[in-house]
Amino acid sequence: MAAVTYELIKKDSRTKARRGRVNTPHGPIETPVFMPVGTAGTVKAMKPEEVRDMGAQIILGNTYHLYLRPGHEVVKAAGGLHKFMNWERAILTDSGGFQVFSLGAMRKISEEGVEFRSHIDGSKHMLSPEKSMEIQNALGSDIMMAFDECAPYPADRNYVKNSLERTTRWLKRCKEYHKNTEQQSLFGIMQGGMYKDLRKQSAEEIVELDLPGYAIGGLSVGEPKEIMYEVMDDCVDYLPADKPRYLMGVGSPDCLFEGVERGIDMFDCVLPTRIARHGMAMTSQGRVNIKNAKYERDFTPLDPNCDCYTCRNYSKAYLRHLFKSDEILSSMLMTTHNLHFLVNTMAGIRKAIEEDRFLEYKKEFYDSYGRF
Amino acid sequence: MAAVTYELIKKDSRTKARRGRVNTPHGPIETPVFMPVGTAGTVKAMKPEEVRDMGAQIILGNTYHLYLRPGHEVVKAAGGLHKFMNWERAILTDSGGFQVFSLGAMRKISEEGVEFRSHIDGSKHMLSPEKSMEIQNALGSDIMMAFDECAPYPADRNYVKNSLERTTRWLKRCKEYHKNTEQQSLFGIMQGGMYKDLRKQSAEEIVELDLPGYAIGGLSVGEPKEIMYEVMDDCVDYLPADKPRYLMGVGSPDCLFEGVERGIDMFDCVLPTRIARHGMAMTSQGRVNIKNAKYERDFTPLDPNCDCYTCRNYSKAYLRHLFKSDEILSSMLMTTHNLHFLVNTMAGIRKAIEEDRFLEYKKEFYDSYGRF
Repeated sequence: MAAVTYELIKKDSRTKARRGRVNTPHGPIETPVFMPVGTAGTVKAMKPEEVRDMGAQIILGNTYHLYLRPGHEVVKAAGGLHKFMNWERAILTDSGGFQVFSLGAMRKISEEGVEFRSHIDGSKHMLSPEKSMEIQNALGSDIMMAFDECAPYPADRNYVKNSLERTTRWLKRCKEYHKNTEQQSLFGIMQGGMYKDLRKQSAEEIVELDLPGYAIGGLSVGEPKEIMYEVMDDCVDYLPADKPRYLMGVGSPDCLFEGVERGIDMFDCVLPTRIARHGMAMTSQGRVNIKNAKYERDFTPLDPNCDCYTCRNYSKAYLRHLFKSDEILSSMLMTTHNLHFLVNTMAGIRKAIEEDRFLEYKKEFYDSYGRF
Repeated sequence: MAAVTYELIKKDSRTKARRGRVNTPHGPIETPVFMPVGTAGTVKAMKPEEVRDMGAQIILGNTYHLYLRPGHEVVKAAGGLHKFMNWERAILTDSGGFQVFSLGAMRKISEEGVEFRSHIDGSKHMLSPEKSMEIQNALGSDIMMAFDECAPYPADRNYVKNSLERTTRWLKRCKEYHKNTEQQSLFGIMQGGMYKDLRKQSAEEIVELDLPGYAIGGLSVGEPKEIMYEVMDDCVDYLPADKPRYLMGVGSPDCLFEGVERGIDMFDCVLPTRIARHGMAMTSQGRVNIKNAKYERDFTPLDPNCDCYTCRNYSKAYLRHLFKSDEILSSMLMTTHNLHFLVNTMAGIRKAIEEDRFLEYKKEFYDSYGRF
């Protein structure tokens, strides 16, 4: 039996939005859910208790980064990633595929896998379906992602078709190699670029393997948002209703709403944490660029409708000062706010679905947040 | 009446060490005390509640830095530094003198004060006794330091004598200009370099002004520690017993013990926070350089005798990984440990004096900590 299971709690009556629960060995995840990214075994600038206390139920770890540093064998010797980083709730690890493909000239793809050079020291490595499983088994994540190829945008049909078919072959190798199925659940990844028929083909091939969950990969890779939404319109219907659906690498507030409306359960993105470190806040009234001179003597909080630690205790003037002074506390406070904002927006979405007023909640949010 | 008062609680029977209390408008400070430095309105990499909860009773702010950024008028408009930075306990601000003297070629000293160029944008400014008081009054610190000249080491006798006499004239101007004596207490600073007779002269001149507290400046400026201790041997005797005594800029563990033994009540230093950001820990077993390869698979805490947040939850292997990955959490966790270590070493010193076993506690500490 698979470690991860999905329970449907309530369906929205007017859209595909659904309120559910993903059960994992490290506790349940109420869905739809936003998952903060902890690339190298830490959600940047946050203590794990802070991430937990703001309501995050699951975080991401990056196989590529943890493999190179400190090395998956070190993490395994520490008792796994949960213990190593002091995080007791669920963890999802990616396959490392996306990162090695992003290395461009520093990698070479073959049927076996991807040969690449480390961005840290230039050393040569090979990542394959088997190697990715070996690393993720060592990390001990609750949800492991299959080693896939995320085709670029734009890409011609032939390239995308070959790529998705190889992704299916790789997925079979992942499933074959992965042994720790009681504690760790392998999710398959649908590819197919912006071609609807190829999305369908990919879905049919991976669903046949009867995995505990499925992700939609290859979106938010540079295409216009309208195209992304259009592809998503159909994607979800190709996936089984009794398994969680995960839209990879997508996390701007509008994408969360559009994704949920189309039946997505899980989202992750570095956006809230990354822009926080660059002085950008997501607030109920839209984005706030804390560097702006107009905040020099603005002693009001970042977001008047927010009850996070940052907004309860600090002014925009102070946050601007910290950012301009290059203080570490700037990243700490801005990250706290942005994660709290997204995690709690998602909590609001869950509540709205329960009350069958998802579309109303979406409209209220869009009216307040403004342009994306 | 001065806002800050000193109470003697207990004297050590064999040394000049003394257990006391400094009362301030923002609460009492049990002495001897170590004061963490919060240069630009933040103790780097720490939330103020974390600094408070580890037992810190007072922190430092830097007049030079806060004057340049965000500007003392901004801090004043925010309601003062306590409110601006969310710190409810006592604050001591330096005069800015030490920083502008450190600017070297970018500053010019005259009887009026020091003309200097900002290290941020090269703009020209003037810091004088009056200006320093104006800035510190705007910041609203509980303890304000006089604008003095800290003579370099080595310096010839004539230079040091002229410098200390100007420091006395500047102190009189500070006292004259400073008006908010109910809420903010001005401390005088003894200078005199390594010349004992000049130390005596400086002390006599400043003690005559009957200020609420006195500091010893101009030590730990490059001289060998033996010379520093020898100068300190006498310095304290020149200062009144009913006022707090503050040794400026000194904070290595051995200096705390040697200072306390010679009758010092207050210490500050950037050392614990700065070396933390460079991966260096102070522990009950001496310094630990977390970068060291031998910690790669060391899953024990930084300090087996420490109960700080870092030592309770993380291993050396994890801390090494964070440091090597340039993660912000590295600075957060290492700073937490080092501040906890010094603040609690000082709590141990206070307890030892109360129990009249200061010298025994010092010996135990030295035996365990090893070389400094």
